[in-house]
Amino acid sequence: MMRRLRVGIVAPGSRLEPTTARRVTELAAERHPDVELYFHPQCHMSSGHFAGDDAARIAAFLEVSNDASFDAVWFGRGGYGSCRVADAALPKLNDAARRKTYLGYSDTGVLLAGLYAQGFRGVAHGPMPADMTRDGGDAAVSRALAYLGHRAADTLEPSIAPSRKTVAFNMIILSQLIGTPLQPDLTDHVLMLEEVSEQMYRIDRTLFHITSNPAIRGVAGIRLGRCSAIPRNEPDFGQTEVEIVQHWCRVSGIPYLGRADIGHDAANKIVPFGAPRVAEG
Amino acid sequence: MMRRLRVGIVAPGSRLEPTTARRVTELAAERHPDVELYFHPQCHMSSGHFAGDDAARIAAFLEVSNDASFDAVWFGRGGYGSCRVADAALPKLNDAARRKTYLGYSDTGVLLAGLYAQGFRGVAHGPMPADMTRDGGDAAVSRALAYLGHRAADTLEPSIAPSRKTVAFNMIILSQLIGTPLQPDLTDHVLMLEEVSEQMYRIDRTLFHITSNPAIRGVAGIRLGRCSAIPRNEPDFGQTEVEIVQHWCRVSGIPYLGRADIGHDAANKIVPFGAPRVAEG
Repeated sequence: MMRRLRVGIVAPGSRLEPTTARRVTELAAERHPDVELYFHPQCHMSSGHFAGDDAARIAAFLEVSNDASFDAVWFGRGGYGSCRVADAALPKLNDAARRKTYLGYSDTGVLLAGLYAQGFRGVAHGPMPADMTRDGGDAAVSRALAYLGHRAADTLEPSIAPSRKTVAFNMIILSQLIGTPLQPDLTDHVLMLEEVSEQMYRIDRTLFHITSNPAIRGVAGIRLGRCSAIPRNEPDFGQTEVEIVQHWCRVSGIPYLGRADIGHDAANKIVPFGAPRVAEG
Repeated sequence: MMRRLRVGIVAPGSRLEPTTARRVTELAAERHPDVELYFHPQCHMSSGHFAGDDAARIAAFLEVSNDASFDAVWFGRGGYGSCRVADAALPKLNDAARRKTYLGYSDTGVLLAGLYAQGFRGVAHGPMPADMTRDGGDAAVSRALAYLGHRAADTLEPSIAPSRKTVAFNMIILSQLIGTPLQPDLTDHVLMLEEVSEQMYRIDRTLFHITSNPAIRGVAGIRLGRCSAIPRNEPDFGQTEVEIVQHWCRVSGIPYLGRADIGHDAANKIVPFGAPRVAEG
């Protein structure tokens, strides 16, 4: 029997419900016997907005990342709080941490960015255990497990090509990393961006910010993921999210490459940072 | 009779109601005979979210700024849209523009930042005509007119000292300028920050961003203005805005200097960028 892949789950931002963790564990046992999950108890801690205070979240992230018996770190949930973990934790990662896969999106993009900026090559943007609670969320979680377990090629965002470096971020998360030590070098990368629950004017402002950064202007192009649950803009913004990203691409000289199959939803595909490493055949 | 100060008003973001402009004109005529106001018709134009399309807002801003017969440019209202004006307009300002006073806050901080970054020395953060619609808004508008008309010393934020450089910004606006060519050099400046209508977790995230920028870490310190109309945080954030700014000051090594008398309200005091130029005795 082949060795099962050991995945440690921590929550650097908001808290994950124990019932959600149980449902993910059951789904993994049923459909993905090649993966063994360990939900760190920190996932279920609570301190104001966060899944435990900063010290607890930093400690759990370091414990799982630096433990050579885990093959992957899976972020349990986004929400908010990764930026309070990154600064203190990233400099303390060891060689075992460097060899791991890291999977998450949304707020946890702060850590994905910081890891990638530090030269980690197993970083990927994709579904998290918390997606289990979405409509059809089992498909999202199953996709993540198939990627973690055996790099299943059909889990990847369909425009991804082995010859081209790619990254994916929530817009506001990338925006809030610009000009900080966590901003990765995205030269020649296809940059995929998605958003959720932000008004159109905020999407416009965030794209102004991202595309005005001189380093970001070195990307190969931008692909627009889904912008979902957009609150009403008062007055009506008068432009769609596609028109907005096309505007800022035109202003900044960045090629607009079309849509990306990512977003805050069950269809969210996997985007490995850099050039993808997929299963053969 | 002394020459009246001519103030041109444009709206680089959202639209200003004509009734508001009329009320401001009446108040100026009554209480500030040393100031003559000209509301550019662009203030009342409408194009989706904005007070006219980008071209109209750029043209009006340049027309008033580059006209030597105006002594000051007063931004009529914030809202959103200054970032769509800045890039195209700022490089086209002439010497007449360089000698003017510019007054506004909130979204128009994008232009204040860009002007200050270009070495303009008449830039100030303070009330706008749109404040007339607030409770007690006539006091805010009157304060702005007293500053524009004769640099009245009692209009200034009380901690401002002639020996110390100061700037003021809405947090999210400064955050969205970081790492762009509009980010001014704030070395040795007291940085005053205020916010409105942002949840606590967003205030926290924005302060992470601002205080993580290496150039911002060169400020003399941060003073916290008012954070008003904060929507409910779910779950409760567990920290006040003062605790949040103290946290990020501690992490970044930036001195926390206490509160600032600025905010999205009628009490909003004037903060001239750089060292203040006030009326004598």
